[in-house]
Amino acid sequence: MKAARYYDREDIRIEDIEPQELTPGTARVKVAWCGICGTDLHEFKEGPIFIPPHGHPHPISGEDAPITLGHEMSGVIEEVGEGVEDLKVGDHVVVEPYLVHDDVDTSEANMFYHLSPDMNFIGLGGGGGGLSENIVVKRRWIHKIPDSIPLDQAALIEPLSVGYHAVERAGYASEEVAKGKVALVGGAGPIGLLTAAVLKAFGATVVMSELSPLRRQKALESGVADYALSPAEVDVVEEVKKLTDGKGADVAFECTSVQVVFDTLMNALRPGGVLVIVSIWSHHADLDIHQLVMKEIDLRGTIAYAHSHPATIKLVSEGKVNLEPFITGKIGLEGLIDEGFDTLINRNETAVKILVSPSGEGL
Amino acid sequence: MKAARYYDREDIRIEDIEPQELTPGTARVKVAWCGICGTDLHEFKEGPIFIPPHGHPHPISGEDAPITLGHEMSGVIEEVGEGVEDLKVGDHVVVEPYLVHDDVDTSEANMFYHLSPDMNFIGLGGGGGGLSENIVVKRRWIHKIPDSIPLDQAALIEPLSVGYHAVERAGYASEEVAKGKVALVGGAGPIGLLTAAVLKAFGATVVMSELSPLRRQKALESGVADYALSPAEVDVVEEVKKLTDGKGADVAFECTSVQVVFDTLMNALRPGGVLVIVSIWSHHADLDIHQLVMKEIDLRGTIAYAHSHPATIKLVSEGKVNLEPFITGKIGLEGLIDEGFDTLINRNETAVKILVSPSGEGL
Repeated sequence: MKAARYYDREDIRIEDIEPQELTPGTARVKVAWCGICGTDLHEFKEGPIFIPPHGHPHPISGEDAPITLGHEMSGVIEEVGEGVEDLKVGDHVVVEPYLVHDDVDTSEANMFYHLSPDMNFIGLGGGGGGLSENIVVKRRWIHKIPDSIPLDQAALIEPLSVGYHAVERAGYASEEVAKGKVALVGGAGPIGLLTAAVLKAFGATVVMSELSPLRRQKALESGVADYALSPAEVDVVEEVKKLTDGKGADVAFECTSVQVVFDTLMNALRPGGVLVIVSIWSHHADLDIHQLVMKEIDLRGTIAYAHSHPATIKLVSEGKVNLEPFITGKIGLEGLIDEGFDTLINRNETAVKILVSPSGEGL
Repeated sequence: MKAARYYDREDIRIEDIEPQELTPGTARVKVAWCGICGTDLHEFKEGPIFIPPHGHPHPISGEDAPITLGHEMSGVIEEVGEGVEDLKVGDHVVVEPYLVHDDVDTSEANMFYHLSPDMNFIGLGGGGGGLSENIVVKRRWIHKIPDSIPLDQAALIEPLSVGYHAVERAGYASEEVAKGKVALVGGAGPIGLLTAAVLKAFGATVVMSELSPLRRQKALESGVADYALSPAEVDVVEEVKKLTDGKGADVAFECTSVQVVFDTLMNALRPGGVLVIVSIWSHHADLDIHQLVMKEIDLRGTIAYAHSHPATIKLVSEGKVNLEPFITGKIGLEGLIDEGFDTLINRNETAVKILVSPSGEGL
């Protein structure tokens, strides 16, 4: 079958490989769509980061580069392994792409399985990937979706879960808490937009700060932002204060890894406000720790998701989140670099999520 | 009556002043003991900070320097104003020394009254102070204490409330959460020790990191620390990992305003851990924000207290916190600078809390 394989920085090849073996407790998913993630771009331009380099096999998967890429996938069950009773051929599914050690408790009792030792992702650390015609995945990481969710939109369930978990980390993943509150999101890239979508679904008033006019337009047109402010044109802190009777935002999300955005969010928060860092920073940050103390700010890190997929599938199936506006391109596997990566790296103001059909059938 | 009055930096005078007027809704407290706080020392050496300088009256109190000092006080009700039905002459009390605007909701419904606009403290922002023979205080800020709590120990209820609120901000102010958990406290000064005392009262295992051998000795002898580590002699992060099967501390408290201590606490926390900043920093901090994200750390600021006095009075009256070991000196008002401030500034390894008897009767 065809698969996109990561060999090294700037070296991703579309190759014919043997499909993975179906083993007890797993199922084979025929991939319908797989999104290209910012993490994939980082691996391409600056990696290997998550990917185990050649000669350094990952302790969980036992695999090293070349590694099949792709972790934002939807598909259809093609084959069911021994002992899997609750999936059948033809079921529509998405994959929660975790690699964790076998002794990790992944039940509801453990909200931190995603922070367990050596944790990595299917499609980065090994275990096959969504950028191939099919993938064999353990039952635990397969989530059924209703047929009412189109398979293309379903490929965005994974990044939506990142936004959901960020909102949950803030304590705002319920209407009871979020309704009528003012949330400020710094950055309207894919994760900023999907975080905003979750906030909006729970009834928050969403203010986005974003330099790019095209991204601001997307934030407003998709309906996830009530206000989209340009920090080059207005004083975001002052605008947020105007919207909140001088108090400041209840909660904020940093989705840019830019110092000045971090500072703006700190300054725009009300006393007792919560600031969640969603982005990956490659350098330390300067922290106004006196303000953190005097305003009793909660600064919280968030990474990926934990038990979030059932919640996001529900939000989408109930129509509370519409993922359609965020699909800005559909390509085949052969176009991965030229049409996919290149567009996202060089024309990322208009591109949000580009989906790949590994079989080409969806195109 | 005699009172310690702050005129300006390095200029505190013991003077005879007119007692405050008793007004409806207030009571007069004859001060038994008033502790000297680190904030008082900062005002003396580097201030005015909280204190309104001469010519700049505070918006709530309407007062400016000279201001009567002292906000850690215990005493006995001496006179009760009109409309105050639930206090009587002779009651033992402590003061929660807040100055907030009249329109601020200070009921249980508002956990953030201490973050309200212009908030300041009695004994810093005006309103009289505990370093005088008596003080007139609004009923709301007076808390009755049982006679079983000695009045000298009661003067430490206020700084104990700072520690309590820090533990509460971490989510650890209950046996259900704290019992069996490992808490790391950076710094064994007065606030570090009292924060440790609260953690210990709720059943946590307390590890303290402190350079001074005498302070480490106090932490162990007073029973608030299970382990007192010297960061000059051991690798605190490694020691904490040894104590926690390699996981890291559940919760940590920064009580030094020193960058290397902040870094140590970040590194020593387990994934999902909580770090509370209790100290006042005069400069920005360097934040390892990537670690905050990848370990999903909660970094929380805390300042003073809110609805904490009833809880701390209970902890002390039930014998869960013993404040006696932290009283390291008792002086009269005339000795405030030479015996009090001077000892705390220059010999602060052995001194924890020095209490002042404004009337001299306690000596």
